[in-house]
Amino acid sequence: MKNRMLIVLSMLLLSGAACLAQGPSAASDAKPSSLNLPGQRYPQVDSQRRATFQLRAPDATTVKIHLVDDEYDMVKGANGVWSFTSEPMDVGFHYYWFVLDGASVTDPASKTFFGNNRLSGGIEVPSPDEDFYHFKDVPHGVVSERWYFSKSANAGRRVFVYTPPDYDTNTTARYPVLYLRHGGGEDETGWSVQGYMSFIMDNLIAEKKARPMIIVMDSGAGGMGGMRGMGGMGGGSNAMVDELLPMIDSTYRTIADRDHRGMAGLSLGGTQTFQTTQANLDKFAWIAAFSSPFQFPDVKTGYNGLMADPEAFAKQVKLFYLSMGENEVRWGGTRPFHQELEAAGIEHVYYESPGTSHEWQTWRRSLYDLAPRLFQPEPEEQE
Amino acid sequence: MKNRMLIVLSMLLLSGAACLAQGPSAASDAKPSSLNLPGQRYPQVDSQRRATFQLRAPDATTVKIHLVDDEYDMVKGANGVWSFTSEPMDVGFHYYWFVLDGASVTDPASKTFFGNNRLSGGIEVPSPDEDFYHFKDVPHGVVSERWYFSKSANAGRRVFVYTPPDYDTNTTARYPVLYLRHGGGEDETGWSVQGYMSFIMDNLIAEKKARPMIIVMDSGAGGMGGMRGMGGMGGGSNAMVDELLPMIDSTYRTIADRDHRGMAGLSLGGTQTFQTTQANLDKFAWIAAFSSPFQFPDVKTGYNGLMADPEAFAKQVKLFYLSMGENEVRWGGTRPFHQELEAAGIEHVYYESPGTSHEWQTWRRSLYDLAPRLFQPEPEEQE
Repeated sequence: MKNRMLIVLSMLLLSGAACLAQGPSAASDAKPSSLNLPGQRYPQVDSQRRATFQLRAPDATTVKIHLVDDEYDMVKGANGVWSFTSEPMDVGFHYYWFVLDGASVTDPASKTFFGNNRLSGGIEVPSPDEDFYHFKDVPHGVVSERWYFSKSANAGRRVFVYTPPDYDTNTTARYPVLYLRHGGGEDETGWSVQGYMSFIMDNLIAEKKARPMIIVMDSGAGGMGGMRGMGGMGGGSNAMVDELLPMIDSTYRTIADRDHRGMAGLSLGGTQTFQTTQANLDKFAWIAAFSSPFQFPDVKTGYNGLMADPEAFAKQVKLFYLSMGENEVRWGGTRPFHQELEAAGIEHVYYESPGTSHEWQTWRRSLYDLAPRLFQPEPEEQE
Repeated sequence: MKNRMLIVLSMLLLSGAACLAQGPSAASDAKPSSLNLPGQRYPQVDSQRRATFQLRAPDATTVKIHLVDDEYDMVKGANGVWSFTSEPMDVGFHYYWFVLDGASVTDPASKTFFGNNRLSGGIEVPSPDEDFYHFKDVPHGVVSERWYFSKSANAGRRVFVYTPPDYDTNTTARYPVLYLRHGGGEDETGWSVQGYMSFIMDNLIAEKKARPMIIVMDSGAGGMGGMRGMGGMGGGSNAMVDELLPMIDSTYRTIADRDHRGMAGLSLGGTQTFQTTQANLDKFAWIAAFSSPFQFPDVKTGYNGLMADPEAFAKQVKLFYLSMGENEVRWGGTRPFHQELEAAGIEHVYYESPGTSHEWQTWRRSLYDLAPRLFQPEPEEQE
């Protein structure tokens, strides 16, 4: 009887504690996010993938957190520190910010990331079984910030260029080029910062799983470079093809033909990829779109009618690659498009990222899955 | 009489308006700061170099702005927008953040910059007579983000490396190297972001005023790279000399001797420069410190007693360069040190940046003044 009382009492106390915490509470194994600024203990992520955020704002009346696509109330605790613990999150990178007495501000404890047309905080939820995007002790390429004069903008434009580990030592080698686009509301920093693209490529190249290549990351907006928001739907296509592409080919040791040039993009960047490559099939033979939200090529008229002839399309387009997160709903058009392509007998590769949504882990995995397929000889061309 | 009444009335109205504005008000020629995020109208700077900041925080009780070294109250206006206009500011870059109901947060309208051991907003006050640090239509070098494995940290470290415009095309040329340090509370991003070092170098090289050189920007803290705070006083010196320097010499086409290797730093980075070069005079022959706060070399014992012999010192140290802002007070030790050197007959170059203080415009000008003097033959060696 005494024992049963204790158990009931314990349960009441536990449920009370849970109530007081207003939502889930973090497990004691929580660790600081890898995206925190030096010395910052919060945000933290526990082994259940629950993230705990804190903000010291002693005089605030209300503090909310905008995390991924939703807003949640934070709770004021001792010393004027507000906190919130999330439900278990998907692995990978997520944007967040605070709404502090009506002002939308980033967490001073987090590095900042350009997304949603603003600078946001970021939290990184570790993925215990994956290290393909981690820094490893392998030969490293570099990501160069390059400014060039754009005639159409009559101003400087900024582009980031990944060159593989052997680029500087193997000074007579020439390389294929992938043009890689960020998503809507992001900018040319997205792939190297949120996407860890250089670690993904360094690791693949070290394992000889991907061919060394140059990767060009520009802004999908037409403007003057630097930090940019969401461009038009085909944003920056003309500037990319007319100005950036010749500059890259004259500046880097590229193999400057369509068989050694590809374009890929995520979300809106995938839509831009469809549009740019359809209009410039003489320049691009490798095409990939991750989680593209809309304006898929029409299987009857797409690529100037080339898709209506699956054999001709497969001959012209060396790789037509599509991917999305398994749990994507709002921007989930890629799966039905893939089914449409299958029904029409159009050769393509389709990948689904398990357990993820419209987010960077989907796109990191997509690049990891895509890169080994790029610029490889056709099976019959192989020795 | 009627006219006089009107004049008095106007004066009253004008003084009333000034009172309501609680401080200086911006001139109507104010323009958005070049460091604003896309589409952001504020902060703005007027022709009198007064900066106006705004923050929409409808439910806030108090909002202050921390600008440079001081804190000011912001005033709530219509629509819940708080604002503040500064007194005329020095030209160049200044850090700022808001204190919103007790929480210290960055302005969501500004790009962010690592300084004061945190991410801050930044405002750029144009300098009408100077464009040496602006983007121009000249050949451009690149700033590469390079990760490498550090044995002492047992982790990846990040370094930024500037290579000059002809580096990739002139593939047999070898280049001198300048190691360039940020200030305390800043990190390895400081010189290329706040300092515009690549535009300064591109412009100087285009005008043939500076010799093309490689510039290496690492973190002055010993840790694992990435974003870093203030290191120890000699922070990172050993890792720089023992690990970074050989990596640079084996990765880039450097001229790997002391006559073609220099080190410079600003503020705490200048102190680190003194300490590193004194301990490694076999590796560095070009030495520069901008606005260094403390621990100047002792003219009797500095550089292992070499300074006690001005002739020997001048022979060994190809350039000993010092600078500061004309208006520096708190960290103003460089001017008296320069006078001490003069009295002791120790050869050096001293530069004062007119009208500026302990801030980036001083350091941009210092780099612009220093770079043409670096890696030049002695007068008698010239043809």
